[in-house]
Formats: sequence, C-alpha cells, structure tokens
Amino acid sequence: MSLVDTAYRLPDAAHEPLDPASLALEELLATRGRVRIELALRHAGPRRVDIDYELQGAAGAPVVVVAGGISAHRHLASNAACREAGWAEHLVGPARALDPQRVRLLAIDFLGADGALDVPLDTADQADAVAAVLDALAIDKLQAFVGYSYGALVGLQFAARHGARLQRLVAVSGAHRAHPYAAAWRALQRRAVALGQLQCAERQGLSLARQFAMLSYRTPEEFAERFDAAPEVVNGRVRVAAEDYLDAAGARYVARTPVTAWLRLSESIDLHRVDPTQVRVPTTVVAVEGDRLVPLADAVALLEGLGAYGRLRVLRSPYGHDAFLKETDRIDALLTTAVHAPIPSGESA
Amino acid sequence: MSLVDTAYRLPDAAHEPLDPASLALEELLATRGRVRIELALRHAGPRRVDIDYELQGAAGAPVVVVAGGISAHRHLASNAACREAGWAEHLVGPARALDPQRVRLLAIDFLGADGALDVPLDTADQADAVAAVLDALAIDKLQAFVGYSYGALVGLQFAARHGARLQRLVAVSGAHRAHPYAAAWRALQRRAVALGQLQCAERQGLSLARQFAMLSYRTPEEFAERFDAAPEVVNGRVRVAAEDYLDAAGARYVARTPVTAWLRLSESIDLHRVDPTQVRVPTTVVAVEGDRLVPLADAVALLEGLGAYGRLRVLRSPYGHDAFLKETDRIDALLTTAVHAPIPSGESA
Repeated sequence: MSLVDTAYRLPDAAHEPLDPASLALEELLATRGRVRIELALRHAGPRRVDIDYELQGAAGAPVVVVAGGISAHRHLASNAACREAGWAEHLVGPARALDPQRVRLLAIDFLGADGALDVPLDTADQADAVAAVLDALAIDKLQAFVGYSYGALVGLQFAARHGARLQRLVAVSGAHRAHPYAAAWRALQRRAVALGQLQCAERQGLSLARQFAMLSYRTPEEFAERFDAAPEVVNGRVRVAAEDYLDAAGARYVARTPVTAWLRLSESIDLHRVDPTQVRVPTTVVAVEGDRLVPLADAVALLEGLGAYGRLRVLRSPYGHDAFLKETDRIDALLTTAVHAPIPSGESA
Repeated sequence: MSLVDTAYRLPDAAHEPLDPASLALEELLATRGRVRIELALRHAGPRRVDIDYELQGAAGAPVVVVAGGISAHRHLASNAACREAGWAEHLVGPARALDPQRVRLLAIDFLGADGALDVPLDTADQADAVAAVLDALAIDKLQAFVGYSYGALVGLQFAARHGARLQRLVAVSGAHRAHPYAAAWRALQRRAVALGQLQCAERQGLSLARQFAMLSYRTPEEFAERFDAAPEVVNGRVRVAAEDYLDAAGARYVARTPVTAWLRLSESIDLHRVDPTQVRVPTTVVAVEGDRLVPLADAVALLEGLGAYGRLRVLRSPYGHDAFLKETDRIDALLTTAVHAPIPSGESA
C-alpha cells in the first residue's frame, strides 16, 4: 500500500481562496488524499486501485466514517479543503451529532465511482477499501460507521469483516441483503442502459435508468402532492406532470456520473449479502416506513439476525428511501444517541 | 354506423372443428363481429373505427359487459366461436357469477388495440365504443359493467357518459383518475419504447417497458417468495433471480402487442379522468391492498365522490394490481353480490 497524497489539496473548481484567520479549528483540519493499494476484489481478484478520501475535524478526535448512497462521495460538507456544499451538508456541523469539533469525519469515493474499474464490485470490496484507508491514516478504531442506503450496506460489511475496528454501526435505509423486488427494479434500470448502448445512446439509457430509480427512492405520497396536475397532449403525445422533474433528475445525474460507475455500483447492491449473525458490533438499524427499496420487513429480519447487538428505529416519511437526505433533523436526533450514547456493558464487541 | 359482421365467424387459428351436438346451449350462442362507426375521439376528433366484439351466452339473457386490462380483448373464455382459453377463463362459466347460462357476456377489443389508430386515445372513447356496439346489437341496457384495471376506468366512463344504460358497475383495481406516481411509472415505460425507437429497436424497448410494468402489476411480497435466489455473475455481469421471469414476460408481450397499440393505451390510462359525482349508477369499487398502481386511498376518494351510489370491498393479495387475474375465487364471490344482488331501492339511477 502506498499513501499517494494525504497532503492538503484543493479540488479543481468552485472554491474561494482560503483565509486561515476566518476559519474555525475544524476547518483547518480538512484533508483530502488518495490511497493506492492492491485490493483482493471479491468477484474480480486482486486489482491495483486508488481510493480517494476526505477527513475533516479536530485533530485527535475520535473518527466516524460516513457513507451515503451510490451517488455520494468523500465530500460530506463544506470545509477548508472544499468549500462546495457536500452531500451530507445538513447532517454535519456544530450542534449536529456529526460535529467536526467533536469527531473527525472520514469519507471515501466509492471504489468504482470514477468509472475506471469495469468489473463486478461488491460491498465487501468497499468495506475493505475503507479499512485500507484507515490503515494508511493509522486510524486503529472508529467510534462509529454511519451509513445511509448503499453506505449502510458497506457499513454492515465493515462490521462483519472488520468488527474489531468498530465501536458502533448506524445503518440507515439498508439491510443485510438486497430485496428481490428491488433487485429486479435495478436490473431493469441496467437494461435501460444496455438498450441505450445498443446504439451509442448510453447516456440516454443512463438518464432513463436514473428516472426509474427516482421512483424507487421516493413515494407515491410525495408524487401525489407534487405532480397532481392533469397530463397534457404535446405534439400528439401524452406528457404527465412528473416528466419535467424526471427529465431534470436524469440530466443532472448523467452530467456527473460515468455510465460504468453507475452500472457497477448498481450491480454491487444486488451482490450484497451479509450474515447478520457475523455482526458483533452494537448496531442501530434505521428503517423508513414506505421505503420502496428496503421494506421494513427486511430491517426486522436484519434486527433478528443481530440479536443483542441490534436496535431498530423506524421513521415515517413521505420521502421513502431518500428520507435520510430530507429528514435531516430527525436523522440527526437519532444519530445523537446512536453515535454518542455510552455503549451498555455486555453489548460491546 | 354499419354492422359489418355479426355472423358467427371462426377466428384464424387454434380451433378445433365444432361438433354442435357436444355443445351446451350457451356455447352455441357465441358470436363474434365487427362494428364500423365514426366515433368523435376526445383528443383526435372524428375517426372511422372498427370495433371487434364477442358476445356469448343464453339468448335473451341480461347482458354484462366485461372489460380487462390494456392487454385484454374481446375473448373472455373458451366458447363455440373460439375454443382458446380467454383472458377471463377462470371468471366465466357454470357456477360463476359470470355464467353464460344466466347472463350474456359482451366484450370488445379496445379501440387502438390493433395498433392502427396512432392518436391520443381516452377511456371516454372506449366507453363510447362500447355504447356503439350496444347500439349495433340493439341492446338497450346492461345488467352490469364489470371492469378490471383499465376496464374499470372504461366502466367508470361508461357509467358517467351512458349511465341510463347501466344498472350496476363493478370497478376492480381502477379509480377515477390515474395516480401521479403510477402515471410517472407509465411515462418512463413509454420512454423505454422511445429509447428503443431511436435506432429501430422498438420491440426491445417495448419488452423493457413491459418488464417495468410487471413490477407495477405485482408486489415485493410475491417477488420475495419467487425470486429469493442469490444473483449470479454471468459473462462479467450481474444477473438477478427475477431476470429469467422478466425476460419471458417481455418476450411474450412483444410477440402479441403492436408497439403503437401499447403506447396509445398506456397514454390513455394517464389521460383518464372521471368526476365520480357524475356517476349515478350503483357501483362496487374493489380495491386491493398493496396495489402499486391504484392505491387504496384513490379507491376511497372514488368512493367519497360516488356518495350513496358507492360501496367498497377491499382484498388483500400478494398479487397486487394483478389480483383479479389470480384471486379468481374471491373475485367471483364479490361479483355474485355485485352483479346479481337486488339493487336496494333509492340507489338505482
């Protein structure tokens, strides 16, 4: 393993010059870097891979890994290394459970997220990639792994494979295996890309795949609120109220996502399987009633497998699977306990 | 209007020669025919159209129109005019509520089902097409209109537009308007066809559209039962357990469905709007808990609009929207009351 670059490094774009005098302590300690290692991939054997990470927070504070959906990345929230808003912007900050003054927050770009690795990937590979970054940064133990959606799957794998390094796991909107219906839904999204690829329209295929995915991330309740208008006939074709929204969602996604990255990360959700009895880390499972990808029944099955290590919290939200991006106050309230409360004796690994 | 052909006519294929001595009375009275009329289409103006129908049952018996999903057609069940099994085979027959010895059963091929009419169609057009067939056959009044899925939408339009001809309506798994989430789901299916059409792969597009539709017709519970197996990596790609099933469903559908027919009928579901207060016919609304296309809340909203004319029956079924094709005994039990019970005074139109 080689630590290619842990030095402070400004990203390419969208940054203001830094004025150190204006920065709080935790901002000064934002770091980006890259770890280059050989990783034994579960389905593709050993590969040389680069893992990009970002670490922010007070020096010496306990470390929490935060991981999000397949579209998430190492940049959680605006900091000195990158001023842009991050994907977890509203979950990170002073007075939040994920406060960089209290904990150092570590996140990676998922393996395969740059589209360069065109092989079957697995959540176990992602967990090993996180462990490799911890090695490179000489971080022995995590206070917590907080995973949302895909990140929850990676967190469960990390707990099963590297449990000795983990004090607590928070798995939001993710379970120990893909639900067969959700897997079918994703397989059809991949077919949309394949249909586009037939004739060099793969980005249109990816756009359509993303639009179908949006239906799985949200709920009928939200659509009923937002897209109640009658359909129109435009150029002899029917156009329904949600199509503008879906068009925009598809276009935004295609602009930032390599097709190969999406295909391989989508597949890796379906390959995901963890034996919950192998997880011996205190785990808070957060499920959302109405999540169309991760039914409550699967969260309960996970809980059963976790035995004494598991506890379940259930949210109701019109945002379904995407609740973690929308219900940030409620998620934060759950994290306050799940990340920081003392671990009852007898539950620690 | 011209009645082109009401004579007994054998369909093209898959029939045994008839032996009249072996046929029960109601079989002898199976008739197929075609009505050619000019119909004022709601979104496309007047058009000359052919409407194919099938009528079976005891001469002089009261008439019940039966209409199914967009893939259904005039052939409900095996009879003298067509020995093939029909799409409602298990709902029609002796001891069933839809017994051809007690009622004459009338069904049509939906307008546009042959793919020749490439204009926006509406459920109101379908209702008018049914009325035109009744005119041609000199049938003044229906004992009932039994509609499932798309047929329920057509039935509601028929009740609103031709209520004086109808004694009872049974609307199974259909409401007074398309749900915005279901409409978005269908719009994306149409985009799959459009993606295929980019490069002459429209039948692959239709296959994919059908596969996505299957997910809306069924439920996660059924998929969890049937497709629990782990995914496989085949030729470097992940293949999930449901894909064989989905492949077969897509191929079967493409083999029998003109692309234009599917597109226009799919659109017509999204154009569907009926003001329930305009329905003054005793109506039994049958909803399935877990139907991913027609949420129970929409059935309840329909019921509220129907006021004293409405009653609601709720089924639980792992088959979701497709329950009417699967739970035939339970549907039949509901129909026995809904089609045959005396209408309480004060509820008749």
